[in-house]
Amino acid sequence: MMPLDPEDFAVEDALRSFLAEDLGHGDITTNALIDPARKAVGHVICNEPATIAGLEEARILVRLVGCQADSQVADGERVKSGSRLLRITGPAGSLLKIERTLLNLLSHMSGVATATANLVEIARRNSRGRVRIACTRKTLPGLRYFEKKAVELGGGDTHRMRLDDAVLIKDNHLALGRSLARSVQTARSKVSFTKKIEVEVTVPTQAVEAAVAGADIILLDNMKPEMIRKGVALLKEKGLRDHVILEASGRIRKENLSSYVKTGVDVISVGAITHSARSIDISMEITPAAARGK
Amino acid sequence: MMPLDPEDFAVEDALRSFLAEDLGHGDITTNALIDPARKAVGHVICNEPATIAGLEEARILVRLVGCQADSQVADGERVKSGSRLLRITGPAGSLLKIERTLLNLLSHMSGVATATANLVEIARRNSRGRVRIACTRKTLPGLRYFEKKAVELGGGDTHRMRLDDAVLIKDNHLALGRSLARSVQTARSKVSFTKKIEVEVTVPTQAVEAAVAGADIILLDNMKPEMIRKGVALLKEKGLRDHVILEASGRIRKENLSSYVKTGVDVISVGAITHSARSIDISMEITPAAARGK
Amino acid sequence: MMPLDPEDFAVEDALRSFLAEDLGHGDITTNALIDPARKAVGHVICNEPATIAGLEEARILVRLVGCQADSQVADGERVKSGSRLLRITGPAGSLLKIERTLLNLLSHMSGVATATANLVEIARRNSRGRVRIACTRKTLPGLRYFEKKAVELGGGDTHRMRLDDAVLIKDNHLALGRSLARSVQTARSKVSFTKKIEVEVTVPTQAVEAAVAGADIILLDNMKPEMIRKGVALLKEKGLRDHVILEASGRIRKENLSSYVKTGVDVISVGAITHSARSIDISMEITPAAARGK
Amino acid sequence: MMPLDPEDFAVEDALRSFLAEDLGHGDITTNALIDPARKAVGHVICNEPATIAGLEEARILVRLVGCQADSQVADGERVKSGSRLLRITGPAGSLLKIERTLLNLLSHMSGVATATANLVEIARRNSRGRVRIACTRKTLPGLRYFEKKAVELGGGDTHRMRLDDAVLIKDNHLALGRSLARSVQTARSKVSFTKKIEVEVTVPTQAVEAAVAGADIILLDNMKPEMIRKGVALLKEKGLRDHVILEASGRIRKENLSSYVKTGVDVISVGAITHSARSIDISMEITPAAARGK
Amino acid sequence: MMPLDPEDFAVEDALRSFLAEDLGHGDITTNALIDPARKAVGHVICNEPATIAGLEEARILVRLVGCQADSQVADGERVKSGSRLLRITGPAGSLLKIERTLLNLLSHMSGVATATANLVEIARRNSRGRVRIACTRKTLPGLRYFEKKAVELGGGDTHRMRLDDAVLIKDNHLALGRSLARSVQTARSKVSFTKKIEVEVTVPTQAVEAAVAGADIILLDNMKPEMIRKGVALLKEKGLRDHVILEASGRIRKENLSSYVKTGVDVISVGAITHSARSIDISMEITPAAARGK
Amino acid sequence: MMPLDPEDFAVEDALRSFLAEDLGHGDITTNALIDPARKAVGHVICNEPATIAGLEEARILVRLVGCQADSQVADGERVKSGSRLLRITGPAGSLLKIERTLLNLLSHMSGVATATANLVEIARRNSRGRVRIACTRKTLPGLRYFEKKAVELGGGDTHRMRLDDAVLIKDNHLALGRSLARSVQTARSKVSFTKKIEVEVTVPTQAVEAAVAGADIILLDNMKPEMIRKGVALLKEKGLRDHVILEASGRIRKENLSSYVKTGVDVISVGAITHSARSIDISMEITPAAARGK
Repeated sequence: MMPLDPEDFAVEDALRSFLAEDLGHGDITTNALIDPARKAVGHVICNEPATIAGLEEARILVRLVGCQADSQVADGERVKSGSRLLRITGPAGSLLKIERTLLNLLSHMSGVATATANLVEIARRNSRGRVRIACTRKTLPGLRYFEKKAVELGGGDTHRMRLDDAVLIKDNHLALGRSLARSVQTARSKVSFTKKIEVEVTVPTQAVEAAVAGADIILLDNMKPEMIRKGVALLKEKGLRDHVILEASGRIRKENLSSYVKTGVDVISVGAITHSARSIDISMEITPAAARGK
Repeated sequence: MMPLDPEDFAVEDALRSFLAEDLGHGDITTNALIDPARKAVGHVICNEPATIAGLEEARILVRLVGCQADSQVADGERVKSGSRLLRITGPAGSLLKIERTLLNLLSHMSGVATATANLVEIARRNSRGRVRIACTRKTLPGLRYFEKKAVELGGGDTHRMRLDDAVLIKDNHLALGRSLARSVQTARSKVSFTKKIEVEVTVPTQAVEAAVAGADIILLDNMKPEMIRKGVALLKEKGLRDHVILEASGRIRKENLSSYVKTGVDVISVGAITHSARSIDISMEITPAAARGK
Repeated sequence: MMPLDPEDFAVEDALRSFLAEDLGHGDITTNALIDPARKAVGHVICNEPATIAGLEEARILVRLVGCQADSQVADGERVKSGSRLLRITGPAGSLLKIERTLLNLLSHMSGVATATANLVEIARRNSRGRVRIACTRKTLPGLRYFEKKAVELGGGDTHRMRLDDAVLIKDNHLALGRSLARSVQTARSKVSFTKKIEVEVTVPTQAVEAAVAGADIILLDNMKPEMIRKGVALLKEKGLRDHVILEASGRIRKENLSSYVKTGVDVISVGAITHSARSIDISMEITPAAARGK
Repeated sequence: MMPLDPEDFAVEDALRSFLAEDLGHGDITTNALIDPARKAVGHVICNEPATIAGLEEARILVRLVGCQADSQVADGERVKSGSRLLRITGPAGSLLKIERTLLNLLSHMSGVATATANLVEIARRNSRGRVRIACTRKTLPGLRYFEKKAVELGGGDTHRMRLDDAVLIKDNHLALGRSLARSVQTARSKVSFTKKIEVEVTVPTQAVEAAVAGADIILLDNMKPEMIRKGVALLKEKGLRDHVILEASGRIRKENLSSYVKTGVDVISVGAITHSARSIDISMEITPAAARGK
Repeated sequence: MMPLDPEDFAVEDALRSFLAEDLGHGDITTNALIDPARKAVGHVICNEPATIAGLEEARILVRLVGCQADSQVADGERVKSGSRLLRITGPAGSLLKIERTLLNLLSHMSGVATATANLVEIARRNSRGRVRIACTRKTLPGLRYFEKKAVELGGGDTHRMRLDDAVLIKDNHLALGRSLARSVQTARSKVSFTKKIEVEVTVPTQAVEAAVAGADIILLDNMKPEMIRKGVALLKEKGLRDHVILEASGRIRKENLSSYVKTGVDVISVGAITHSARSIDISMEITPAAARGK
Repeated sequence: MMPLDPEDFAVEDALRSFLAEDLGHGDITTNALIDPARKAVGHVICNEPATIAGLEEARILVRLVGCQADSQVADGERVKSGSRLLRITGPAGSLLKIERTLLNLLSHMSGVATATANLVEIARRNSRGRVRIACTRKTLPGLRYFEKKAVELGGGDTHRMRLDDAVLIKDNHLALGRSLARSVQTARSKVSFTKKIEVEVTVPTQAVEAAVAGADIILLDNMKPEMIRKGVALLKEKGLRDHVILEASGRIRKENLSSYVKTGVDVISVGAITHSARSIDISMEITPAAARGK
């Protein structure tokens, strides 16, 4: 038995549920028409330029059903239109039955990775690699793990996975609770020392307030680039810039990204790379296996 | 206890898993900062024109956590930017904890419904309501039910839910198996009489072959509008047009939809309305409940 | 690793839950008395004439626990009393622990297949193979997949798997809703074009009404053979017979089946082949493996 | 909230999975045709004489979907043909959606209870209530809890629920392991003092051997009535009869039951009451709720 | 494929959930720092004298992730401080990812086995092996199977696994219901003949009452050794001692155990061996695999 | 319906599985003896001084089965022996069926909270509240959430919940990978900016190396108090003390805790408060409800 990364169990479980969602009681077309002993080869082709994510998941799926997969392409790689991503061999029926599940996940993850990579490239060019692109918790329900992984493969930062892995004090928390400074202090005392504390602010002076209060990260939300610059300058002036990580967010997209990159923040987070990623056009061509093959 | 649609159990289970995905062991920020006795009101606002889907799911989620939701908007309704979709009341902490899950699903379903409604509108205008827009099995893993439902709410047709609810004989089946006519005949004899049989064809003469073989539906795949017209004409010529439903598919999008609508087919299916729907911008504003309220 | 049909995952999951139901925390008798290193051979014998179903499930169960199974008999085959269905080798303890689960499923599925085959044989003889025997949704809770599969192996038709894979408008729907014609029309417009529409009728004129309204299938429910004949004749008279599939149902059993077969319908559905199938007497004889064997 | 028996959680979970098996993505017929606001009344009628089981499960199902159920009949009661078992009120759509699941379980459980009650009645008459009728582990996969409960309601004994709740040393254990006496002794020392030890024997002298070895229960398997009598006599002769419970099993059915009852054993176990129970004919009539009703 | 004990499925499922509890979305440290191709060897060492339990579970876990485990030590064995329990080989990352889960279960189960073995040793010495040490249902939630198994490996008796595998009539049942004699009689008639009936008593005369009523086991609860002696004497006097198993329980611990052992009871049950077992200090040392190794 | 904290779903699911583990197919004793209509009151009493945790879970369990619970004591409160923790009312049978599950969890969580509170008290006294007591990932499988919560209620720090919520570079990672400085740098670049990075060191100079490399937290593992002091002094000397959180761990227990508290570290982590917590003696007394009550 091949070693199995302990983390793959969760992926296997997800893939099995995705398969079940598509199969129902079974693929009645294939079962009626295809000889179970028939072997075939499937070529997974990327029909447009893309940054690929989901190949590992595809391989796990192929392995789950006892077929074989080879690939010259690695997750995170940029490919040209027409690139062959995977070559799968096994019973023709099995290939037909996993085809859509495999492609649906691979196309979506590659869509997320490509959207991420496009922004990462702009951020790199405009900051000499200093500024990170991050995603948010605006992920499609049930797909957070896969989308966050695709973001990483596209060169991005996963940000929080869940509401329990870092503190993020938002406007709603402040509206319903205490002052910013008191909130940071309360969070610091109640939450484990292993967690970072981030505070969302909307004006430069709040950024200073957050930094003084001891926030680890400051999220400059829905602020125009010039206002962000002011915030950065103010923090530097007060000698606080080096104590905090600065993240910008809110209505940032490809078109205006570079102006945000140049403001001096460390991280720019964009919800659209997960919640609105366009699927990459990937297809599978299935051909009968050569007669002598098994 | 309010009656519960038996179908809602599956939705509840999905919503609980979506919530768990976001919460992990708990919302450490809210738990540290918000008084559990604090009541609040959340207004869910749609920040752009859209066809809404997911309100029923949102209400189920709100009910699950024992909060109340009112709404003047119905699923499937077209709203203007700034419309209030839901008013939710309950503990402030609960609102904060369900916010992202609720919005992620609602934004995505509304994205699918809006993309569908846009195409449906074009189809209606160009066919006096005769031509249906359908989605495909190119849905995001785990979200098929929700996306198919959003398509319906957008005025579209769900097409097959799974591989077991209708036969669809594709090029791959033909390449690996029998001739088209034999395949239809085999499927007819092996598959329950309750299932329809659809055949994918790529040239007009194959459409005739499929109709003669007794297919219920013919999928004209990746054919240019003019070729589809030829197929329709040929079927009419042979007196077969009325015996089959004709579906067109492949590289059809908003821009070229009307030319396909006018070919004389009955259904046009488009994968992008599910796999690449742009999320609708929907947000929740949480404010403290009035002091005297409970 | 042997290729695994993607559909087998659901079967594996079911088998694991069936095993767990029988094992609880473990087989305390076997654990106390049988040396874990002891190998054995189990012969599964059919003690009466039967049409066998469930061998594939038995093999999946045997494979799940890492034992080996050989068989000269195929699912769907008619066997004589005393036939050896399977030869299983593996640890004696494993054989003892899966014995009852394996036999319970195999005996029940074979019971369903045998009951079906008996009716199918009568239908064949009396209609030159034209009339199908179908089961219904009257299946034992949790066993629908297995019973429908056994029906297929017995030569029968699975009919609807679930409430979502075809429309069936019953008396209750008509009592609570619209007229028959309006109901068919409404279903046609609201339900996907990929679904067939069946209507339950109880008198010949309703059959005509349903055919005119565009039903794909007409279920002649609880009608005596002579009345069914009248319905068929009426449909022919109106030139509608070829546009619909006719199904008869209600109090039909082995004894009166042939008179229904001869009425001219296409399908006869019988709930008893699933809900009241008598279990086939199948047992396992376990003997120590030969000393030199492993 | 009404108190919920802690044991009902498992029943609820099973009922939800049974419902899901029937519903799939939803009841497309009802959703297309029935107004969600429409209320209805469903009468569940038993169409033949029967001992009823499954009413509690039916009520749990009805409660799960927020409808109301009343009943004049109790589980375990013997009813005449035409008896009204339940009156259910709620949305018409909900009644239609749970109908088949409710009836499938109720009909099957009542079938098991009726088959049991018939044998119990014979045993009572022939032993002045001394001899118990028990079921076995020959239950339909996934339905053990429900079938064992139906046996109890029919007046029978559940016997072992699982392989872990009592020791039963069978011929296979003896063939693969030690002598009968050594096996009883080993089981006694290895298994918890809270478990009974039963031994399967096939000849009278073995029964003595088992009793001497300290078995709590002796299963006289596949022995003719006269041989069983001999075994009982032999045990009495040796003064061992009062130390053991005697169970007879193997090819016992309604027709020959009384001759077994009179042998002097304490328990007679019959697999057929669970694995081959004929479903009781129970149906639901759904009518619109009176206009003024809610 | 290696044969798999059918009982291991439940263990595998539990281990997968334990792993998932520790991994979350993945081991971000190991994933960032360790080359996936890196092989390693892990030595599991017991750092104090102990009776070991959990090695089988550890091997199942190791096998689950496709690594190899060897061991010179067997479950239930007493080891000295510094003993090597397991040698595990496989990818370094996999070893790091399963380390804590493996050790947490092994340390706890060994803690339970060691606590049990210590009491068993005292009981053996003071009763020439006649008196059993049993655990109770005071187990940690979710760990009953593992703790009961560890008790067995430590030489103890598992007592009841669940509320359904034997009757135990406690003071609360008597307070809320009938008299002791009536309760035994009622249980005898309502509960399967395969179950034993135990009665909890607190004074010697009640023990006689229970024995007369036909209890199989009498639990002498919270009685001082001298009172227990009186009870035993009274039972002997009445000729009832040989018909019942006597169990003592309540505030019995290592220090006072021998005085209870000598009272003449058969079983002594102690909740602390499961609910308060001190974890055994077991650790894993991971070293790079030799260069030539694979 | 009472509002339900969204985080309670996971607790409910766990409690249902804990209940199922104890109930099996049902409480045969209670079902045989207690009238289902019988109401009762249960008083949960703490029989020793303790810091209580698990009351919220107990209340969720009580609510799940539709009973009522009142309490004068709050989670995290220190109580004297004999304190009444909860008063529960409902059907006698329900109280008997949940009793053990409720007590097992409450006793264990209170055991963890009490062990924690004892150390927290020592740390407070010796550091004027500056030094935190933390638990580790050495929790009992399946109980991490409950044990971490109990630690918090005892005044402790939860530390990492899972391997994905902070980086902790241990000796094993260094042995298998890169140098300490390179490892910190690699983790910083590969892992999200929202995560803290902790490094385990065993000598003072390594602590400096870790701080220079940019670690957020330094774990001084298995170092004697004097060596830890040296490490703290060295960090101060280099001006690095204020940039890092210092955690001490390894063989620290009640007896030697104060000497570690005084070394100048910020956090002391102790595995034993979760993996070896002694269960608190808590019991339930059930009495019939007053006659007039319902």
